Amino acid sequence: MTTAAAPAAKLAEDALAYARALIRAPSVTPDATGALDVVADLLRQAGYRVERLVSDTGGVAVDNLYARIGTTSPNLCFAGHVDVVPPGAEDAWRHPPFSGALEDGVLYGRGAVDMKGAVGAFLAAALHHGAPAHGSISFLITGDEEGPALDGTVKVVEWLAATGEVIDHCVVGEPTNPEALGDMVKIGRRGSLSGVITVTGKQGHVAYPHRADNPIPRLVRLLSALTAEPLDAGSDHFPPSNLEVVSVDVGNPAFNVIPAVATARFNVRYNDLYSLATLKAEIERRLGTAGEAYDLVFQRGASESFLTAPGTFVETVLDAVEDVTGRRPEMSTTGGTSDARFIKALCPVLEFGLVGQTMHMVDEQTPVADLVALAAIYERLIVRYFATFAA
Amino acid sequence: MTTAAAPAAKLAEDALAYARALIRAPSVTPDATGALDVVADLLRQAGYRVERLVSDTGGVAVDNLYARIGTTSPNLCFAGHVDVVPPGAEDAWRHPPFSGALEDGVLYGRGAVDMKGAVGAFLAAALHHGAPAHGSISFLITGDEEGPALDGTVKVVEWLAATGEVIDHCVVGEPTNPEALGDMVKIGRRGSLSGVITVTGKQGHVAYPHRADNPIPRLVRLLSALTAEPLDAGSDHFPPSNLEVVSVDVGNPAFNVIPAVATARFNVRYNDLYSLATLKAEIERRLGTAGEAYDLVFQRGASESFLTAPGTFVETVLDAVEDVTGRRPEMSTTGGTSDARFIKALCPVLEFGLVGQTMHMVDEQTPVADLVALAAIYERLIVRYFATFAA
Repeated sequence: MTTAAAPAAKLAEDALAYARALIRAPSVTPDATGALDVVADLLRQAGYRVERLVSDTGGVAVDNLYARIGTTSPNLCFAGHVDVVPPGAEDAWRHPPFSGALEDGVLYGRGAVDMKGAVGAFLAAALHHGAPAHGSISFLITGDEEGPALDGTVKVVEWLAATGEVIDHCVVGEPTNPEALGDMVKIGRRGSLSGVITVTGKQGHVAYPHRADNPIPRLVRLLSALTAEPLDAGSDHFPPSNLEVVSVDVGNPAFNVIPAVATARFNVRYNDLYSLATLKAEIERRLGTAGEAYDLVFQRGASESFLTAPGTFVETVLDAVEDVTGRRPEMSTTGGTSDARFIKALCPVLEFGLVGQTMHMVDEQTPVADLVALAAIYERLIVRYFATFAA
Repeated sequence: MTTAAAPAAKLAEDALAYARALIRAPSVTPDATGALDVVADLLRQAGYRVERLVSDTGGVAVDNLYARIGTTSPNLCFAGHVDVVPPGAEDAWRHPPFSGALEDGVLYGRGAVDMKGAVGAFLAAALHHGAPAHGSISFLITGDEEGPALDGTVKVVEWLAATGEVIDHCVVGEPTNPEALGDMVKIGRRGSLSGVITVTGKQGHVAYPHRADNPIPRLVRLLSALTAEPLDAGSDHFPPSNLEVVSVDVGNPAFNVIPAVATARFNVRYNDLYSLATLKAEIERRLGTAGEAYDLVFQRGASESFLTAPGTFVETVLDAVEDVTGRRPEMSTTGGTSDARFIKALCPVLEFGLVGQTMHMVDEQTPVADLVALAAIYERLIVRYFATFAA
């Protein structure tokens, strides 16, 4: 076992080697088979049973992986993805995006922080620790997180449930730290709901408004009603729910024509004071107060909020982070959605990974020191987890 | 001289013949030279001095005409245009749009009511009446009313002023009657002002609204402030001023992105309670109450309102209409803008023409009986005008 002060040289070496091997297997979403092969080969060699799960709900075959060592409970799962967003113009990069270049102690490459670096750290920690004496370690790694996310974690979770495979606790390796490793653990995520409001009037000439029906003032009244008051003031573990009108569109180029139709598009990021159903009802209630006819269509892909309430599992993760960084991370529920929302159906889940500042950007990068420290944190988590839950 | 009950056969015959000749000279704006030739030839033969005035401010040479018979005051001017809007798909027409077809006592063709029919009636009335014993009759006919209107009446008016040519009173032949000949005389027109409001914020991810600045709620507040109260309740001769927001545009296709810029476009049709300057000030005052930063650009081509107050000239026109139709028309200032707004700088001007229902439409048409009655009205106006103003 490593110590907090000095991660074993082998652990450090492996974390970097695995992360670089993953970066060097280009896997722009959803074509992540090569990177999943890297994960599968390492886990098989270490004695894990490896399942490859292909799903094609979205029209493209997506490769996913579930692997486990041990047959008994508790089963601690490391979850994440090896697909990445496109690199954009490759010549804008300081180093080729799939080269895994090292310069001055920094690892460059698409996926370095989101989240091949964390998957490399998962692998180094689990393989360095070895099979637990009691209980199991598992990996849930998908190739469809950065895309539509129809054929990734959600399908693996369905497969796990269908086959009776039980995960007891899960850590997702998304980059959760705003500034420095140890800043933040995500213990939940807000839900997300999008909708389109359409107001239909009657076209006509501006000089004869009584013969037309302008939908724009009606839409303005609806939007005023929708946004007049905050949705809430936040809850114990969540920031306030937030509604943003992201577009309003009419597309009328003529100053002398009253248009027939106006639309507005909105998105809500909402906390545990609402369910998807109560949020939809509140939106319709607010729109109703405007006294205007409208059409509202909620978009597919809405998600519920989730929370893994502070308790023994959360404390165990915080302890592991503090062991290595000397800092106790903030418990947060901010930010976008993640695959953790699907895993929450199975077991308590939280998220901790690298520093997210360069995710999705040109020259995505992580200090090697962070990568090594993250591997050490995950290994400390394994030790603390089984000491606590397999005792 | 004709009588009200039975317009002279020659007047009726000429009004129809002139209108058909004009319709058969296709003159989709601004290429109206052929139709102006018809007018010029008829007036020259009748002893008018005819000036052709070409202007090309808008980048295309536009032909216009000013003609006068007589050298003394008062000078009664008939004003109008012989350019027409495009016919659209010609096979959608019952009769070819430039054929001047007659069917069941109805004259079909592009321009039949807007306003080659009225110009034909002008010509028939003036030529049937002949040169006035005291005073003058003149024609101001343009080829740029339906287009940008940069090289039409506005330029002829400038030329008249520059050369010292004096018009004492003017009738514009726009189709002013909503339902039946005799319904309505326009004694003024509202002004028109258009503007674009732009609100600039800062783009960002919807999950991190504190890092972005959504311009849409700010634009909604601005539009609410702009439209919260009516501009006025109307004046003695005008309906209430009216502001229409004609478009709102953001163009953001993503539900997870807060946009950087939102724009709104508006048009105001305003009465004589405002000048262009006081209206602009009121718009800025209202926007200012929202407490939001914005950029406002007023569009070129704004026009002031004008009014020819009821009095002897207006009564003379109403009398002429009543002579022929047996009805006293409503005095109105409703509807869009017209070239009368430019002529108002020279002299009292009002508008009376055919029934406007089919203007700009496929199968534009007028009953021949209306055309003949309109010629009779214009001739009665000539008689009454000189009896009143040249006495």
